[in-house]
Amino acid sequence: MKSLRVFAPATVANLSCGFDVLGCCLENVGDEMQISLSAEAGVRITKIEGADLPMATDKNVAGVAVIAMLAALNDTKTGVDIEIYKKIKAGSGIGSSAASSAGAVWAVNELLSRPFTNAQLVKFAMEGERLASGNAHADNVAPALLGGFTLVRSYAPLDVLKLHTPKDLFMTIIHPQIEVKTADSRRVVKPTVALKKAVTQWGNLGGFIAGLYTNDYDLIGRSLEDVIIEPMRSILIPEFENVKSTALENGALGAGISGSGPSIFALSKGKTTAEKVAKAIEKVYQPTGIIFDIHVAGINANGVTMVS
Amino acid sequence: MKSLRVFAPATVANLSCGFDVLGCCLENVGDEMQISLSAEAGVRITKIEGADLPMATDKNVAGVAVIAMLAALNDTKTGVDIEIYKKIKAGSGIGSSAASSAGAVWAVNELLSRPFTNAQLVKFAMEGERLASGNAHADNVAPALLGGFTLVRSYAPLDVLKLHTPKDLFMTIIHPQIEVKTADSRRVVKPTVALKKAVTQWGNLGGFIAGLYTNDYDLIGRSLEDVIIEPMRSILIPEFENVKSTALENGALGAGISGSGPSIFALSKGKTTAEKVAKAIEKVYQPTGIIFDIHVAGINANGVTMVS
Repeated sequence: MKSLRVFAPATVANLSCGFDVLGCCLENVGDEMQISLSAEAGVRITKIEGADLPMATDKNVAGVAVIAMLAALNDTKTGVDIEIYKKIKAGSGIGSSAASSAGAVWAVNELLSRPFTNAQLVKFAMEGERLASGNAHADNVAPALLGGFTLVRSYAPLDVLKLHTPKDLFMTIIHPQIEVKTADSRRVVKPTVALKKAVTQWGNLGGFIAGLYTNDYDLIGRSLEDVIIEPMRSILIPEFENVKSTALENGALGAGISGSGPSIFALSKGKTTAEKVAKAIEKVYQPTGIIFDIHVAGINANGVTMVS
Repeated sequence: MKSLRVFAPATVANLSCGFDVLGCCLENVGDEMQISLSAEAGVRITKIEGADLPMATDKNVAGVAVIAMLAALNDTKTGVDIEIYKKIKAGSGIGSSAASSAGAVWAVNELLSRPFTNAQLVKFAMEGERLASGNAHADNVAPALLGGFTLVRSYAPLDVLKLHTPKDLFMTIIHPQIEVKTADSRRVVKPTVALKKAVTQWGNLGGFIAGLYTNDYDLIGRSLEDVIIEPMRSILIPEFENVKSTALENGALGAGISGSGPSIFALSKGKTTAEKVAKAIEKVYQPTGIIFDIHVAGINANGVTMVS
């Protein structure tokens, strides 16, 4: 039977100025999955290591994503067995569910000789997000599938774009192991915003994207500001302001909440700066007694890839 | 005495998806101004042709802009005489006041051997906008001074960017000669927006800017959508929906309200399409009995320029 092992990357959504539309894909941080075609029709989760997640296909994000994909092909004959080797912690805010959904549909698409483009796979992976959070958002699955920085230009119709990625950007991510459920984190977000703040936000989003295309690191940094969501959500994250200001003092271009948190990202020019930022924010978190992980990662230009 | 004649271009602000932040500069459509240094200290409006505008320096947008500029230089000795040859109609929505403010400060800066960059001149020209509309907005004066497409990333601190301009874009502008004052047009805009609509808007703004940098005309067209301001303001403009749909049917990439109206813009790939759009929307307006102008113009990459 044909089988594939893939790396399913972690992702950072929102990126301060792009709530629900921006995301980027990380190198080295992510899960592995073994996806195999089977003679027995249907989709099965056959193994999960590293996390306590549902084995029932219709309760598992990878399962529902592949079901949606096969349904779009009117395919009732293909059998798929999914093994998940989880490294990204659930609820971390760096796209744990997106990695599983994206990794699964990407691998099955490969095994079926690519009936879909990577951009077309986004809508199937979004079904995993719908199961995970009640909201079929695309800002993690798009970068997981396309790589680099991505923009969800529109949800109806779905239109996702891969943006230009400057070479020298590195992420520092701190994941405090407290539980902030995506659904809870969405609840603190108000349904209306002041037009004035919305204008500030789209100025920054525009500046960020112009900065990506012109490799203007200062502009990218100036644009990493969130006047809408961060003030509401950051209160759920211990030491957020302290981590952010420490990252900036140590040379980061900008910092903010990764997705719906509790992870905090800092974006830096150069790996040396990103590592310096990691050491500095580690010192901020140590006295809290909260268990945390820290990652330093480049931007993954490819998204999900085969593991050789 | 030193003297300069300049072309002060018309501009289109907002561009559907970029309320208060996006703008672009037009070729051929604009005013001329003759700016002269004088032995007598102070700023004077010495001639206005083509419009009934205030001659008092502190009531004239060009006057207050130059006063702000000289004040920033602590210059109490320079004398400036300003002649304005107005072609852009006041209240048209294609940056009439911005052309005068921008043209005046650009010319005086040249005559004083450029103490400021063009980007630095924006804040002085904004004083003219404050006088004209009660709001020191930059989305017309920025493209008038920098040329091409511009983004006001931030107002505090002021940060204006010139974006990449694809070669083959042309504007068709129809100006129905009805009065829609900027202040009135701002009044119909609600102070809060649904977060969901704000997300749609920043997706489109991001797509528009990515489209400019990648010369992706289809993406530019898909992104020219305004779910926030246009539904409110378009009711003030007779035949708006009809003009817009006619422009799209005739090949325009997109269409919307120019600035705060009543002018309507359509953006097309290629001059031939822009001229076809002009003819088609002319037919829409003729039966209304409303007097109107139509312009077809390329994108002016330079902004204010000297007239040879």
